[in-house]
Amino acid sequence: MESKEISQAVIRRLPRYYRYLGDLLDQGVVRISSRELSVRMHVTASQIRQDLNHFGGFGQQGYGYNVQYLHDEIGKIIGLDRVYHVIIIGAGNLGQAIAGYHDFEKRGFRVSAMFDKNPEKVGLTVRGITVDSIDNLEEYLNHHKVDIAALTVPKSEAPGMALQLSQWGVRAIWNFAPVDLNVPENVIVENVHLSDTLMQLSYQLKDR
Amino acid sequence: MESKEISQAVIRRLPRYYRYLGDLLDQGVVRISSRELSVRMHVTASQIRQDLNHFGGFGQQGYGYNVQYLHDEIGKIIGLDRVYHVIIIGAGNLGQAIAGYHDFEKRGFRVSAMFDKNPEKVGLTVRGITVDSIDNLEEYLNHHKVDIAALTVPKSEAPGMALQLSQWGVRAIWNFAPVDLNVPENVIVENVHLSDTLMQLSYQLKDR
Repeated sequence: MESKEISQAVIRRLPRYYRYLGDLLDQGVVRISSRELSVRMHVTASQIRQDLNHFGGFGQQGYGYNVQYLHDEIGKIIGLDRVYHVIIIGAGNLGQAIAGYHDFEKRGFRVSAMFDKNPEKVGLTVRGITVDSIDNLEEYLNHHKVDIAALTVPKSEAPGMALQLSQWGVRAIWNFAPVDLNVPENVIVENVHLSDTLMQLSYQLKDR
Repeated sequence: MESKEISQAVIRRLPRYYRYLGDLLDQGVVRISSRELSVRMHVTASQIRQDLNHFGGFGQQGYGYNVQYLHDEIGKIIGLDRVYHVIIIGAGNLGQAIAGYHDFEKRGFRVSAMFDKNPEKVGLTVRGITVDSIDNLEEYLNHHKVDIAALTVPKSEAPGMALQLSQWGVRAIWNFAPVDLNVPENVIVENVHLSDTLMQLSYQLKDR
């Protein structure tokens, strides 16, 4: 599969396909035409055919797409055919919410530890995970494989913590702090800037 | 200000400018050149000049941008020169996290009520807001102005709740459920699909 030729725009759309196909599977749908999928997803059928053609041979004339096959193949492209070890830095409400999503676990993102610097949080148990002191983070990283660190600490602490995580070998940061992180180029950062999305709403409301 | 001529791509970038300018204000910076801003934001200076030129006359040759003025003008464009009344549907960890962000309140997004259908959640107090029963939501909407509803209920309940909110007059939904909502065209939906961003991470990790 020549994933290098796939544009960023298509890549950005893959999780949405994956999500819809998963829902279809849950509903017991075995196959679906690009036209039916297009109605559900509010995307043109030709866009769907174009996107999925990148991955070659999933659709069959007059039959449509095999939902399970397409779901699994897109999952492989996204990298969901393995387990990712996730740690959460910051055990506040947001960190606890993330730890609580069983959809993440179902897709192979396994939360293996949570850390907080607040002594009142340390020792709390969230879905079977006991919150550890941030003082033990370096030691933990020395002895455990960690793929992704979810960063839910306050804005003021996030840049320093991101640098430390990078130095300690973490290669992907899922950042929820409302600040952009400066980390070495070999560290992947995916930002979830909630306030930015809220401002998109106010901008659209303003024009009404 | 001819905001109608501004492209979606520029609009999407405005919250980020607003955030950086707010940080500069907090640091006591009075003015900044496009070059300095470009270094901080990791965007080319020419991109910054182009973007900000859309709003006319903010920069001055040899002086740079007046940070306070630019911050306030962009705030007005985003629609932050007023108060938005926000309710939160779903008082779990994520709902509580949203209620707890004072950054939102600082920008004029005021959480005025929270609702949940779980009797164990009803009566809880989060930052001075007492969680109300979902049974009282329609009544509440009849008597209070609500601009935005944050939807943090489970996936299975989100589409039905979104429809009800639309019928009861809510015009903007900030959706955290991992499902796309079908609502009338006059209702604005901004999705925060956390699992989609997590899959962007796994995709990038896979290629390493």
